[in-house]
Amino acid sequence: MDSLVKKICAGDVRLASRLIRDIEDKLPEAKAKIKKLYAYTGKSFIIGITGAPGAGKSTLTDALIAALRKKNKTVGVLAVDPTSPFTGGAILGDRIRMQRHAEDAGVFVRSLATRGALGGLSHAAGDAIHVMEAMGKDIIIVETVGIGQQEIDIINHAHSVVVVLVPGMGDEIQTMKAGLMEIADVFVVNKANRPGTNQLQTELASMLNLASKNGKGWQPPIVMVGDAFEPGAFAEKIAELERKIEEHHKYLIESGKLTERMHRKAMAEINDALSACLLEPVIQKLASTGELDSFAEKIKSRKADPYTVAEEIAKNYFIRQDKK
Amino acid sequence: MDSLVKKICAGDVRLASRLIRDIEDKLPEAKAKIKKLYAYTGKSFIIGITGAPGAGKSTLTDALIAALRKKNKTVGVLAVDPTSPFTGGAILGDRIRMQRHAEDAGVFVRSLATRGALGGLSHAAGDAIHVMEAMGKDIIIVETVGIGQQEIDIINHAHSVVVVLVPGMGDEIQTMKAGLMEIADVFVVNKANRPGTNQLQTELASMLNLASKNGKGWQPPIVMVGDAFEPGAFAEKIAELERKIEEHHKYLIESGKLTERMHRKAMAEINDALSACLLEPVIQKLASTGELDSFAEKIKSRKADPYTVAEEIAKNYFIRQDKK
Repeated sequence: MDSLVKKICAGDVRLASRLIRDIEDKLPEAKAKIKKLYAYTGKSFIIGITGAPGAGKSTLTDALIAALRKKNKTVGVLAVDPTSPFTGGAILGDRIRMQRHAEDAGVFVRSLATRGALGGLSHAAGDAIHVMEAMGKDIIIVETVGIGQQEIDIINHAHSVVVVLVPGMGDEIQTMKAGLMEIADVFVVNKANRPGTNQLQTELASMLNLASKNGKGWQPPIVMVGDAFEPGAFAEKIAELERKIEEHHKYLIESGKLTERMHRKAMAEINDALSACLLEPVIQKLASTGELDSFAEKIKSRKADPYTVAEEIAKNYFIRQDKK
Repeated sequence: MDSLVKKICAGDVRLASRLIRDIEDKLPEAKAKIKKLYAYTGKSFIIGITGAPGAGKSTLTDALIAALRKKNKTVGVLAVDPTSPFTGGAILGDRIRMQRHAEDAGVFVRSLATRGALGGLSHAAGDAIHVMEAMGKDIIIVETVGIGQQEIDIINHAHSVVVVLVPGMGDEIQTMKAGLMEIADVFVVNKANRPGTNQLQTELASMLNLASKNGKGWQPPIVMVGDAFEPGAFAEKIAELERKIEEHHKYLIESGKLTERMHRKAMAEINDALSACLLEPVIQKLASTGELDSFAEKIKSRKADPYTVAEEIAKNYFIRQDKK
């Protein structure tokens, strides 16, 4: 067994952190390391937590970590933050709150930031999860902000998806629910002491009723979480959430759906890896030679269209590959 | 000149709509049609409107259309909606409000929905914008929900970006602002009669002050928009917004930044087109032969890692290409 693999599998925080940073920076070595680690992955249960900005996901994650630790489960947390695509700087914000777990060797928290406009965040998230799996974390929590396609791609790495809603967030949130409905395994109505809570709960329940008529086996439960300032009641609600996630895990195993989800996850991973193997080297090569700039000039002046340029690049690239 | 090109350039709504639908459905013919249209694109001014769900972007877009029509500008609107990645159904929601422009031949409104988990929404948005450009629209408004990477990719198609904020949306919105700061050319503080308005305005102004010390040439203005129920005041604010966008347009031209942005846009288009030419055909081929499923099985059982599989696929694919 490779020494790096050995150390990460033994839970080496420093090496694991560095590898995640290398993944984020798209260093070629990171790919080779993930390849070696891969055989030791796939044993963690992965929970996705998503919802609109301001829904209180980080507070829930923080409480969930504490609940899982009480059960002696080791936990990895991957927070995928919105950030500037140009400066590359991560905004960690309230991630700082999670520092109370910093002394606990059973908890490993890392953030991923988007770097550059050419995407690949879902891919990086997948590989960062693999590192935490290799570290032997029982549970990995992936927290994403927002509900764009990118976020859905990221959340597809999870086995159980918790969608967090808040009362009184306006019309568009209501429409969003329909999109989130498809990916949610457990709903949390957070800040459930705000006006509009009853309405949200009723609407959600009736939508779930409608959906269950389609013969879906799992009926997503709704966990109502009140204000974090009432510690006793809050902890009870978090315990309920933790229980519901566990029930869903059990359901996934017994129904055979876990295998199904892992298959879907593997297909997404092929797609991500193909992009890394096919697309990225081409772009990088063209950028380094300045060809990308001159192609962009052609397109800008409408002397060529992007498809014709792409076909030309693809043709050249294949020939180059073959000549090696 | 090709008959389809001729008709779309003459503003044929039926053909333009069909082409946008074909782009969304990723029909190969759509690609060939965009190739032909491309020479007639690039003359519209493209405005991106983005912000969190519930920020009131659609209401602003609607009012902006009316303001632009008063100046006899023709307008295309592309609304990129969150939707289910599994059912493929678009949630049009409050897009219905824009129907009041339906009788106006100078306005062309279309929605784009995400289809399937394999992405490509930014690419589809780019091509849909090209169709509206060929139709000769003076202004094209691209409205996106959320602030994920995908949304930033989409908003990169725009020349001027309007970021809409709302007071009292919680901590995470505040952190988001830092990410949005980089892409915003004009800020709107919407619902600026809510509690927290002054605080938001002050914070925003001080962040902008900080940013301007970096010697940035354009100082993004903040437009405060009150409740839509006061028609006179609201219309005045929208006129101000429209004026600020026009000022930014002028700045872009005079500073040479427009050329810069169009170059960046062309690079993103190459990336999108390469993905369409290189990646998608491989995935489609593998899916149709069932190979994708057996590769996924291998990965699921940890008999192989995704990178090794991707490299194998890439190698086979290149050889196949060459043997043709």
